[in-house]
Amino acid sequence: MPVQSVLVTNGDIDHVAGLLTLREMQPFSLFATNGIHDVIAENPIFDALNASVVKRRPILLNEPFELVTNLTATLFPVPGKVPLYLEGDQVQTDLVGEQTVGVALRTQGKTAYYIPGCAALTPELRAQLEGANLLFFDGTLWQNDEMVRAGLGQKTGKRMGHMSMDGPDGSIAEFANMQIGRKVFVHMNNTNPVLRPGSTENARAQAKGWTIGQDGMEITL
Amino acid sequence: MPVQSVLVTNGDIDHVAGLLTLREMQPFSLFATNGIHDVIAENPIFDALNASVVKRRPILLNEPFELVTNLTATLFPVPGKVPLYLEGDQVQTDLVGEQTVGVALRTQGKTAYYIPGCAALTPELRAQLEGANLLFFDGTLWQNDEMVRAGLGQKTGKRMGHMSMDGPDGSIAEFANMQIGRKVFVHMNNTNPVLRPGSTENARAQAKGWTIGQDGMEITL
Repeated sequence: MPVQSVLVTNGDIDHVAGLLTLREMQPFSLFATNGIHDVIAENPIFDALNASVVKRRPILLNEPFELVTNLTATLFPVPGKVPLYLEGDQVQTDLVGEQTVGVALRTQGKTAYYIPGCAALTPELRAQLEGANLLFFDGTLWQNDEMVRAGLGQKTGKRMGHMSMDGPDGSIAEFANMQIGRKVFVHMNNTNPVLRPGSTENARAQAKGWTIGQDGMEITL
Repeated sequence: MPVQSVLVTNGDIDHVAGLLTLREMQPFSLFATNGIHDVIAENPIFDALNASVVKRRPILLNEPFELVTNLTATLFPVPGKVPLYLEGDQVQTDLVGEQTVGVALRTQGKTAYYIPGCAALTPELRAQLEGANLLFFDGTLWQNDEMVRAGLGQKTGKRMGHMSMDGPDGSIAEFANMQIGRKVFVHMNNTNPVLRPGSTENARAQAKGWTIGQDGMEITL
């Protein structure tokens, strides 16, 4: 079945560049917040998504909409930052607004959450996710300083607007006592050791009940 | 050896989108005409190529420059059109200017040409290419109307600014009597039957002295 709907939760390159590889005349609906649609519109290269076949659908935060038949989605803000290419001299990494959003997906009484970027698990977000059937969560880094230690630059996970997996305030610890049916890490950076099958970190994440997401993964709720 | 130099010959998505997949702090020089640099600069998403590590190097047409040590490049205009996402209501497909260029590469007395998009083989271009040691040439389509016949839209090769391979004014016929050491088709569209090993078209192109370019191909002059 061809692509019908594309939902974008962030305006940064790793979220929107894939739009450029879609076929020129492929009709679909492009769902995003107004903030993200604006970021896309400021780049004429995305005009290749011909407006006569690709409908821009602006979505309000916290208002459910039908993403595809029998699947409802609701966008909600999570702490994050503006896209890298829009950063100024000062970068707020716990910004809550239209730039970085999570998605609640609901079908047949079940709820899944997709949150590929998240700077912190606030009490409100924790309360929202409690009891979910499925969670896809930001798995960018194992440790906050792993890119610095690997000599790949000066940026920590916090600076990039991401929680790390490890440590007392990491996602593995933060989600440990929550009731969530299935937990899947997504959006891993290529420095994250959980990506190596057989690594200690991979084993620890799995032992704590996490699945490491993979390309082409399909999930049935 | 890490990438040192990137040379872009066209501002369209298939030529520039790859820049978005390079590492954020990878230092290199980005060479292009002013016309192509302008197109890139109009899209803030390319600001991810941090100006402190990626040097924009504007290149004048017909002026040789050192692309990497011991390899000189010269850009020259070939007939083409503006990028898809900058097309207006009227599109000139034989525009000659900074938007679509070929490259002459010279090292140790040998010359190779790289021309991934070209709407027509003009007498001037034919004279320039005569005697080259190597030619990489626009292999987008086998026949002008192959995308239309495949039901993939209304655009012909001519409309997209490309010569086709087949036919009396196609590139195979046009280059048949020229003295060129080695001829390689590049930039094939996925509808082009030469991509299928064992196809009649693949055999015909090879019988006429053409190599079908492949990902990862390395060539020694």
